Amino acid sequence: MAYKGVIDRYRDFLPVSDKTPIVSINEGNTPLIKSIYISDIIDADVYLKYEGLNPTGSFKDRGMTMAISKALEENAKAVMCASTGNTSASAAAYSARCKLKSVVLIPEGAIAMGKLSQALIHGATVLAIKGNFDKALEIVRDICNNYPITLVNSINPNRIQGQKTGSFEICDYFNGNAPDLHCIPVGNAGNITAYWMGYKEYKEAGKIETLPKMWGFQAAGACPIVRGEIFKNPETIATAIRIGNPASWKKAENARDESGGLIDSVTDEEILEAYGILANKEGVFVEPASAASVAGLIKMKNCGKLEKVKKEINRRLTIVCILTGHGLKDPDRAIASVPKPKIIEPTVEAVLKEMDY
Amino acid sequence: MAYKGVIDRYRDFLPVSDKTPIVSINEGNTPLIKSIYISDIIDADVYLKYEGLNPTGSFKDRGMTMAISKALEENAKAVMCASTGNTSASAAAYSARCKLKSVVLIPEGAIAMGKLSQALIHGATVLAIKGNFDKALEIVRDICNNYPITLVNSINPNRIQGQKTGSFEICDYFNGNAPDLHCIPVGNAGNITAYWMGYKEYKEAGKIETLPKMWGFQAAGACPIVRGEIFKNPETIATAIRIGNPASWKKAENARDESGGLIDSVTDEEILEAYGILANKEGVFVEPASAASVAGLIKMKNCGKLEKVKKEINRRLTIVCILTGHGLKDPDRAIASVPKPKIIEPTVEAVLKEMDY
Repeated sequence: MAYKGVIDRYRDFLPVSDKTPIVSINEGNTPLIKSIYISDIIDADVYLKYEGLNPTGSFKDRGMTMAISKALEENAKAVMCASTGNTSASAAAYSARCKLKSVVLIPEGAIAMGKLSQALIHGATVLAIKGNFDKALEIVRDICNNYPITLVNSINPNRIQGQKTGSFEICDYFNGNAPDLHCIPVGNAGNITAYWMGYKEYKEAGKIETLPKMWGFQAAGACPIVRGEIFKNPETIATAIRIGNPASWKKAENARDESGGLIDSVTDEEILEAYGILANKEGVFVEPASAASVAGLIKMKNCGKLEKVKKEINRRLTIVCILTGHGLKDPDRAIASVPKPKIIEPTVEAVLKEMDY
Repeated sequence: MAYKGVIDRYRDFLPVSDKTPIVSINEGNTPLIKSIYISDIIDADVYLKYEGLNPTGSFKDRGMTMAISKALEENAKAVMCASTGNTSASAAAYSARCKLKSVVLIPEGAIAMGKLSQALIHGATVLAIKGNFDKALEIVRDICNNYPITLVNSINPNRIQGQKTGSFEICDYFNGNAPDLHCIPVGNAGNITAYWMGYKEYKEAGKIETLPKMWGFQAAGACPIVRGEIFKNPETIATAIRIGNPASWKKAENARDESGGLIDSVTDEEILEAYGILANKEGVFVEPASAASVAGLIKMKNCGKLEKVKKEINRRLTIVCILTGHGLKDPDRAIASVPKPKIIEPTVEAVLKEMDY
């Protein structure tokens, strides 16, 4: 019964064997929180899958436990990625736990120390190259192709395997039922791919009877799948989904089409509004990219597409929104979103006045 | 089976009734992570209770779900605290979820915006008074005594009730067994009080047969219980336990004495060493105060007190260390703890050279 992470719990569905040394920080088992305000405005049962409560603060840990365990099994001498955010933090933490060297390549000058502090504190070797992100990734690929070093960027297929366990948890929570709609932010598109894979495998195994429609949402300034073209200079405040050419582009389109779903875009304004709603009305603090799932759901209500699904399914809908990372990952955004505290006299009266009491 | 927070799971042990409106963000159910490196150096089975994976990033959420639910039941019009850190973040989040006004009083100029961003993003009214922390708390007490406003600082007894659920989870994890030793940071001393209460209640209910020894650890610069005197100017990098006159002083001493345990101190250097071990060897990122439990355990090994317990119990020990908050709560400390990334030429050779490959 004791919980020991996603590989231990969902071993039968994952490409591991008795020979695989399992590296886990007890990731997964994240809360599915019934929303109050959003359920109300959407008029459906909306649940928030709070992936920010994974050990390193994002959903990446589900995939990283697989990627690092398999790297160990394959006798890798190190792992490597070109990343500035959640992936590098997760890779560094899991590598630390099994004494594997982790190396993170970043473009010089482009990254604030705050974003890197997690990878550094977990002991990753972080190298800033005199070049851009594409050059960093090119070097990483080159090295991983020629040395016993495992690439842990999202093209590593073991990451998708681990990430699909999110679907299993959702269906288990609902006692063997899938939700009607699954709303999810889309950046590199690995996560929508993973969740769809998870739902399909659970159905095949007889664990659930129906599949959800997959509703993916990109940021308007970084929506290559929506537009059908690569974004050379993707731009959005939702940095975790600021991707111009998604690695899992085709697979995301498959998830959309097979499920009868959609992939749409949401503006930074819509993302920030949803970000505020989550913090202010639900008590759930997320990084901006996470709010894209909720922003998208609200947009689909406003444009009438949600109504169409309600008519089609013809009973109260169960909807899950994936919240990919914790708000503490991006404290600068939080500070930018709020007013400074007012300074007042140290008296009961002054305080009561400010409270409108 | 679906998890819905600590009140739902442990209702029979908590002062709630059918009339209590439950306000929960699915707090609790946090991982108990088997340590690798620390178990090895301690030569015992050491588990890390990672309370940083509560919704707002600290153990405070366990108590806040109780405090806010009871405030609602008692028709409070608002909740209030004088706090600069984890308590205000938690109070603001839970209040947001049930549309209760939350007010946080702080001393002017003393607090960095980063520390306040969580309370602000959750919509708390944060007021900076022209006075010190004691003055802020005095005003809060005065207002809560005279108006239907609930004080949610740690003297609110419902918080201890909620926090004791941490013990229940640990014993449930071990299939109805308590650990031999329970190591925990001590600041205001509410948490050691709560855990001890939880263990005793579980034993009384027949859920466990033995009780752990409680080992509490204060920071050397803020160790009033160890010294037996109030610290007028407590000072430590472990800000979450920088308390000179703990609210639950006597109760912490009771926990220590009834359990045959101890309360000792650890220096900032010892705390930072444990902080580094957790991040670098276990892959677990905590705020500095959290590391006091591990620092204390290591100190007790080095001074021989752990050996005495081993001889007394005469089998391999099971030890739990409470890690109270997530490292993302204090990013400045993380940045201060690591070197800046090295800048290198964008070539495979340059990267391999830095990897000692």
